[in-house]
Amino acid sequence: MKAFVTGAAGFIASNLVDRLLAAGHEVTGFDNFSTGQREFLAGACAHPGFRLIEGDLLDAAAVQRAIGGCDTVFHLAANADVRFGPDHPRRDLEQNTIATSNVLEAMRAGGARRIAFSSTGSVYGEAEVFPTPETAPFPIQTSLYGASKVGAEGMISAYAAAFGFQTFIFRFVSILGERYTHGHVLDFYRQLRQHPEYLDVLGNGHQRKSYLYVQDCINAILLAIGRCTSPVNIFNLGAGEYCEVNDSIGWITKALGLAPELRYAGGERGWIGDSPFIFLDCARMRALGWKPELTIEQGIIRTLEYLRQNPWVLEKR
Amino acid sequence: MKAFVTGAAGFIASNLVDRLLAAGHEVTGFDNFSTGQREFLAGACAHPGFRLIEGDLLDAAAVQRAIGGCDTVFHLAANADVRFGPDHPRRDLEQNTIATSNVLEAMRAGGARRIAFSSTGSVYGEAEVFPTPETAPFPIQTSLYGASKVGAEGMISAYAAAFGFQTFIFRFVSILGERYTHGHVLDFYRQLRQHPEYLDVLGNGHQRKSYLYVQDCINAILLAIGRCTSPVNIFNLGAGEYCEVNDSIGWITKALGLAPELRYAGGERGWIGDSPFIFLDCARMRALGWKPELTIEQGIIRTLEYLRQNPWVLEKR
Repeated sequence: MKAFVTGAAGFIASNLVDRLLAAGHEVTGFDNFSTGQREFLAGACAHPGFRLIEGDLLDAAAVQRAIGGCDTVFHLAANADVRFGPDHPRRDLEQNTIATSNVLEAMRAGGARRIAFSSTGSVYGEAEVFPTPETAPFPIQTSLYGASKVGAEGMISAYAAAFGFQTFIFRFVSILGERYTHGHVLDFYRQLRQHPEYLDVLGNGHQRKSYLYVQDCINAILLAIGRCTSPVNIFNLGAGEYCEVNDSIGWITKALGLAPELRYAGGERGWIGDSPFIFLDCARMRALGWKPELTIEQGIIRTLEYLRQNPWVLEKR
Repeated sequence: MKAFVTGAAGFIASNLVDRLLAAGHEVTGFDNFSTGQREFLAGACAHPGFRLIEGDLLDAAAVQRAIGGCDTVFHLAANADVRFGPDHPRRDLEQNTIATSNVLEAMRAGGARRIAFSSTGSVYGEAEVFPTPETAPFPIQTSLYGASKVGAEGMISAYAAAFGFQTFIFRFVSILGERYTHGHVLDFYRQLRQHPEYLDVLGNGHQRKSYLYVQDCINAILLAIGRCTSPVNIFNLGAGEYCEVNDSIGWITKALGLAPELRYAGGERGWIGDSPFIFLDCARMRALGWKPELTIEQGIIRTLEYLRQNPWVLEKR
């Protein structure tokens, strides 16, 4: 495969790049380094099968130049700051929806016809069915992030109908593991390094979320694109379980040997548009023979270990 | 109400403008006249409560200047050429999704907090449930048009959550009636004026579609915004029936006294991304006391009469 990976220097994408290279594929990585980390591509850059192109997905001509010769696109670049959508109402539209249009148009011009896209469980808004299947009732979007991803998903499916693309849409829960650069584990660890005696928690701590370890996520993506032949393939990707924020706090503080005072902001949501319960039905992906190797607790501990060994990540952004 | 109507010179919007003015509201119409017709606003322009601003929704600053002082936005401007999406893959994104973002941002800046949006039954893709309710299973988009509208819908709902907007999303079937400027009735009538002896028909004629008369559509919009108090209100709008393209051909040719040879292009779809069956469940709207006054047949005949009396419409576009 000649792969094109957007957001290549990001958390999930850089792990995917390493996996693709290890499997013998040629990989072109594309990143604007707005949030990506050059350190994450250090191994890839030493590999002869890897080519790095620095550029912005909003520069349609640059994407088109970069994508030439590739057959499969892993479009993982995104604005992933779900929480701060209302502070920058155009950012999700630009970096998620418009950027996806540029990727699709570059593929059309360059002859690439297969795309795997990192969507999100946030497209279900505040779901009413749990675990939530891919065929849940038509959701009402509650975040600009979810809205921008559902718009991108729609274009990707429409390109399958209009231009014969083969498309894979993966709706992720929060992903954990090595190279994790944002999210609650980092927030909590950063706080506890600064003030081990207390921890500020968004919401009431009873928000129920599901997580998935990054290598389990990548296993699923690679399995699906190797197996499926339909024009449009949509998969939820998450653990077969969920936990409360309070469970996560328990595992993290135990691993650190701390007993901080927990200071809850209150309310059942962590922020505007936060869904108080995310738990995806992944039966469709499991039917292909996939299952996660790490539990949520193991994923959180693995992430914490990574952050302890790489404190420079805490200083970023 | 101080209303702001986008695409004011269009088919549905110009009818809405007349209704709003007749009800005593102040109306600012905004249109770039790319497809809108000045003739449709002739009556409105003679009314003291009407103000026309010529501008483009992709010019965010112009929208922001124009919207000042308005409290309720009827966002009806759109690229409505469902069929030609693949010829211009960016057009739906720009004119439907990005334009909607500009409208929402202008509202946020200008203090308008209520928006009614013309979405489409096309957001259901190829539905599997008929009649299709608003809560149908999460659809797979089959057209760039549907994708661009589902992206816009998502942003609108997210603005309700993030910024306290009250939002109305109306998913229309095809609308019929006075000032109709594109669609199958116009195509058929135009053909039959040129060559009464035959009629070229897309697909196999068995495509099943639902339609709604424009004043019935406007009745529903005005009823809903007067009654509903929820932040997000989503309504299908269509007739309680559907017809085959062949039924429509029968009504039109009978009214014209013609018996053309029917030349079918074949296939169950009229074009790429065309849904062979559109029939929306409008029980939610009917529960407010609304029902259509015209049948589909009456709506088609009314449209045909309009076109016969206004042949200049056939020469446009």
